Amino acid sequence: MNEKYCIGADIGGTTIKLAVISTEGEIIKKWEIHTDTSDRGKNITSDINIAINDALDELHLHKSSILGIGAGAPGFVDTDTGYINEAINIGWKDFDFGIELKELTGLPVWVDNDANLAALGENWLGAGRGVENLIAVTLGTGVGGGIIANGEVLNGANGTAAEIGHMTMKKSGGAPCNCGRTGCLETETSATAIVRKAKETVNQYPASTLSELEAMTARDVFEAADKGDPAAKEVLEDVIDTLGLALSNLTVTINPNKIVLGGGVSKAGEQLLKPLKQAYISYALPRAAEACKFELAELGNDAGVIGGASLVKQYYK
Amino acid sequence: MNEKYCIGADIGGTTIKLAVISTEGEIIKKWEIHTDTSDRGKNITSDINIAINDALDELHLHKSSILGIGAGAPGFVDTDTGYINEAINIGWKDFDFGIELKELTGLPVWVDNDANLAALGENWLGAGRGVENLIAVTLGTGVGGGIIANGEVLNGANGTAAEIGHMTMKKSGGAPCNCGRTGCLETETSATAIVRKAKETVNQYPASTLSELEAMTARDVFEAADKGDPAAKEVLEDVIDTLGLALSNLTVTINPNKIVLGGGVSKAGEQLLKPLKQAYISYALPRAAEACKFELAELGNDAGVIGGASLVKQYYK
Repeated sequence: MNEKYCIGADIGGTTIKLAVISTEGEIIKKWEIHTDTSDRGKNITSDINIAINDALDELHLHKSSILGIGAGAPGFVDTDTGYINEAINIGWKDFDFGIELKELTGLPVWVDNDANLAALGENWLGAGRGVENLIAVTLGTGVGGGIIANGEVLNGANGTAAEIGHMTMKKSGGAPCNCGRTGCLETETSATAIVRKAKETVNQYPASTLSELEAMTARDVFEAADKGDPAAKEVLEDVIDTLGLALSNLTVTINPNKIVLGGGVSKAGEQLLKPLKQAYISYALPRAAEACKFELAELGNDAGVIGGASLVKQYYK
Repeated sequence: MNEKYCIGADIGGTTIKLAVISTEGEIIKKWEIHTDTSDRGKNITSDINIAINDALDELHLHKSSILGIGAGAPGFVDTDTGYINEAINIGWKDFDFGIELKELTGLPVWVDNDANLAALGENWLGAGRGVENLIAVTLGTGVGGGIIANGEVLNGANGTAAEIGHMTMKKSGGAPCNCGRTGCLETETSATAIVRKAKETVNQYPASTLSELEAMTARDVFEAADKGDPAAKEVLEDVIDTLGLALSNLTVTINPNKIVLGGGVSKAGEQLLKPLKQAYISYALPRAAEACKFELAELGNDAGVIGGASLVKQYYK
């Protein structure tokens, strides 16, 4: 009974994913609870505490065998204190989450944003296993990033390291971004961007099959391109070229061993990876590109809880 | 006599700068020797050994009070072993410099590239003193970079981290770069780039004072712009805008506490900094930009030897 465990908690706008994971990386239990966003999410911390206590009872684990909790939320987090500056989907603003969870559970708590946890998860048990330098990119509704350098996650001066979705890719004429600016990587290459660009482009191609779709998704655009649809091909060429440029510029900054691509858009697999690598190589310093492999993320929705447990494993002393 | 010292060595194409620095940051001795690039630089290691022995004799220091040597060279370095893949100016290629210097001197040796040492130097005793996250940019004949994140210098998978001079800033139509590609930050914003662009632009402005110059320098362009010369102003606006974009994209990647600007071009001071900050803020995620201060480098040519000593201080165990 000397085995020690870490708890990962990945707090999203709809569900909170939880897991108990051994320090060896074995997932002992994995479950979800509803995210109660009422009253600006004030019950969430207590809900997590109850869920953890119930799980430990069920597993017959004493709290002394738990090294701590690693929790992630989408937003700006002060990783030194676990203070949440803002997590819009959850309703938190200026909320001392880390300290509250620590006091309620009596366990050490580390907090980071969800994209950084995903990078840590893939770095521990997923597609980026064991590499010292990793960029994890989540291509979904938005574009998120997590960076591991020298074996450690980068948080930066105020938790905005690896906010690669806000690299400026178009100096002018780009679409508006949630951040208040225009032309961000997120507004140029997310699933949302692919759909927006397809809707804009389809007018120039009356024969495009995309024009028949009522509710278009990024997946539809990939499928149409695969069948040779010119509007879909034009959109994806532009999107993938921009993504290749951004990843090449990140590569001469971080010099990663691997770039791991996750999120809904990454489900396009080789249809995304093949042209992306071509664009990337055309823009990247050859010596840096040689060192870097592209991989599809392996952990899917589990990346966050595994990353949370990894955070505990890394910082527990 | 319990004081311990570190030796910094900054190997350039013309001179090798050396310094003996206490672990408290006091520079005990600082001197230079000629770089003997004959026979592909094969005498350099022995020249450094002799120079160090002479200095220790002169200072009445025993080798046991020296923690080690931190050496820098311009080029691609394997920092784990001190192996130099290539340092063109010095004539080294596939050269086991770190091990050779260690064997000759009997001291522990750490090696890194010159731009990373400059960042470490400014981080220890210069304009970036004590910050955990720093980007040091050298704007000279080329554009070099060094990045400190989580308090450690980034080297990456094969020593090309922080090679920011090779961020691609122009997808097409950029000038050719030494790296074999076009449109790199270096070919768009170095002193060399400023002069090249001024020569190209001056034709459109027959009244420009720059057209009278026989051997134009970047400084001439700044001086002409300061006097209102339209060609010079146009060139600098373009260059500074590109630099601001690159630094803003680096900022959402690293989230630095400070960006320190060194090299010849940085001598323009506020004439560079003021418009650069404006361009930077226009492209940067506001929360990340808020955390970041711009500073001019303070250590000049001493940054490399101080950074070398810092490398020893950091890694000596």
